Amino acid sequence: MSRKTILRLGDIRYAQNKWTEFQKNYDIISINSNENSNTTRESFINDLKSGKYNHIDGITRTFNSVALTGRFDKELIDALPPNVKFICHNGAGYDQVDAAYCATKNIQVGNVPHLVNDPTSDTHVFLLLGALRNFKMGLNSISKGKWNNGCSPGFDPVEKPVVGVLGLGGIGRDVVKKLKPFGFEKFYYHNRNRLSEDLEQGCEWVSFDDLLSKCDIINVCIPLNPNTKHILNKEAFEKMKDGVIIVNTARGAVIDESEIIKQLKSGKVAAFGTDVFEHEPNVTLENNELISMDNVFALPHLGTNTFNTIKKMEENVVDNALGYLESGKLVNLVPEMKGTFY
Amino acid sequence: MSRKTILRLGDIRYAQNKWTEFQKNYDIISINSNENSNTTRESFINDLKSGKYNHIDGITRTFNSVALTGRFDKELIDALPPNVKFICHNGAGYDQVDAAYCATKNIQVGNVPHLVNDPTSDTHVFLLLGALRNFKMGLNSISKGKWNNGCSPGFDPVEKPVVGVLGLGGIGRDVVKKLKPFGFEKFYYHNRNRLSEDLEQGCEWVSFDDLLSKCDIINVCIPLNPNTKHILNKEAFEKMKDGVIIVNTARGAVIDESEIIKQLKSGKVAAFGTDVFEHEPNVTLENNELISMDNVFALPHLGTNTFNTIKKMEENVVDNALGYLESGKLVNLVPEMKGTFY
Repeated sequence: MSRKTILRLGDIRYAQNKWTEFQKNYDIISINSNENSNTTRESFINDLKSGKYNHIDGITRTFNSVALTGRFDKELIDALPPNVKFICHNGAGYDQVDAAYCATKNIQVGNVPHLVNDPTSDTHVFLLLGALRNFKMGLNSISKGKWNNGCSPGFDPVEKPVVGVLGLGGIGRDVVKKLKPFGFEKFYYHNRNRLSEDLEQGCEWVSFDDLLSKCDIINVCIPLNPNTKHILNKEAFEKMKDGVIIVNTARGAVIDESEIIKQLKSGKVAAFGTDVFEHEPNVTLENNELISMDNVFALPHLGTNTFNTIKKMEENVVDNALGYLESGKLVNLVPEMKGTFY
Repeated sequence: MSRKTILRLGDIRYAQNKWTEFQKNYDIISINSNENSNTTRESFINDLKSGKYNHIDGITRTFNSVALTGRFDKELIDALPPNVKFICHNGAGYDQVDAAYCATKNIQVGNVPHLVNDPTSDTHVFLLLGALRNFKMGLNSISKGKWNNGCSPGFDPVEKPVVGVLGLGGIGRDVVKKLKPFGFEKFYYHNRNRLSEDLEQGCEWVSFDDLLSKCDIINVCIPLNPNTKHILNKEAFEKMKDGVIIVNTARGAVIDESEIIKQLKSGKVAAFGTDVFEHEPNVTLENNELISMDNVFALPHLGTNTFNTIKKMEENVVDNALGYLESGKLVNLVPEMKGTFY
């Protein structure tokens, strides 16, 4: 029996040992930014259609590999050879992969849940404190050698006491857990369905509209999908309190970016902390006003950027693929596929 | 009986109402950066000696008023008119005032404790997360429109699991309380004397040397005084773990600044988060290397810079002065004077 082969899309940073172990039993075809930086979506789809990858059994991919292949949308999925039975995405959010369409093609889609919760919620708390306290002005001022000239004050938690979480999942719950000792007064959340009490962690379930109108700080922790794209749009912002603070470590496109720029200028939104952008990584001074605004405290998608987490996530992708290769079942199937395959 | 008068040094930002109320019963002479920006230490001491302020009963001062008068050291205290019976400092740390010398002159010194704990510990956690996660590179990169090019990863709490607090007082305890849910493994502290168990909050008391050698993260939360100046010097750094992270929201001079620059360059200290500088506010690109270093995450002394806290601290100073004016006792006498006056 011939060895099974997987197509590995994107760079490996710290899990070399794990992949070396994997190669004892399986073959790898690798497309990455070092050796294949001239790969484009067009060349990749042509290669798929030409039969170059007809012998692959599955695919692993990184978030950044989207720069080489583009999104795994219908066009790309239709071009995959019939042998492909799984796609393992390295990340919790798998919006780059049309999982619903994969299901119709009998392709399992896996992600990396849980491991991202701690580093992403650490990043979230950092951005929340930075936005709440207006620290961007201070960081900029001192780094230019101007001490704290003109640094406006920020807020204490008692000044923005009502905290909301849009999407109380693994990351949202960790955000709440870490914010608890800071002295906020009340935590609300909105999910489509109310959670069991032990998962609520003392947060009160409210409707989407109530979340918008009651909260001083709104934490965006929901996955991006067709239902959540631009869920924070003009209509939603108008329902919010004046001076609301928004923090987003989910996906940029959950928020209508051109709209939040207007709301930040008017002061309706007092501050915005974000790790994610609607059109990332294409975020430049020319095409994105947010990054130059004093009341926007922004990181370039570094939510899981730690030595420990990068390595563990990369290793988790290998384990996920091994689940299929050894027993026909990914270890971490994406939530919406649960029940479909097993 | 003539109305009592106080000399108010420094600007008032948000407690105008409280001071207006105060003026119903007392007089104020004000020296501030708006109206008296040409005041110098020399002119101030000359005015004191000339008898210009002979009728004042007490003084209130802000941290930034040091730019107008210089430190309240022996020279300045000797020049105070004999009628001066109290000095109310606006801040928790009163290292700008030689309280021991004031005691010999029968002058009560007051500070603003407690109120600073929450905002300063919020700032501390922010700086710790920024240093731990190496977020400065990301903040700089995106603000230049370069997305996350070349952003090295940072660490998860599990990679720097042992946390130490040098000075487990009000701020140190709040730092520990807020760090608890982040998944660190162990908390140590060093004070000269062991605290009662309820104040320890689960932190283990160790010697100064043990704190240095055991901890992955060292949080500096001790007041500056002659005993603590440069307590983190070359000898101390040499006892620390390689790759230690230091966070300081106390006073810059607790650390030998020229030494930590060397330790940051060698990698002995992996990262330094700081709100304070040894020679602040004189911190420029020319005279301070720290602010340009990639592994130094620095704010320009914004620990208590919130609308709520600034106002409450300013009001607290008035209440403190009223304590003396109405009953001969400051409400918040500095700790080292407790027992001396009452």
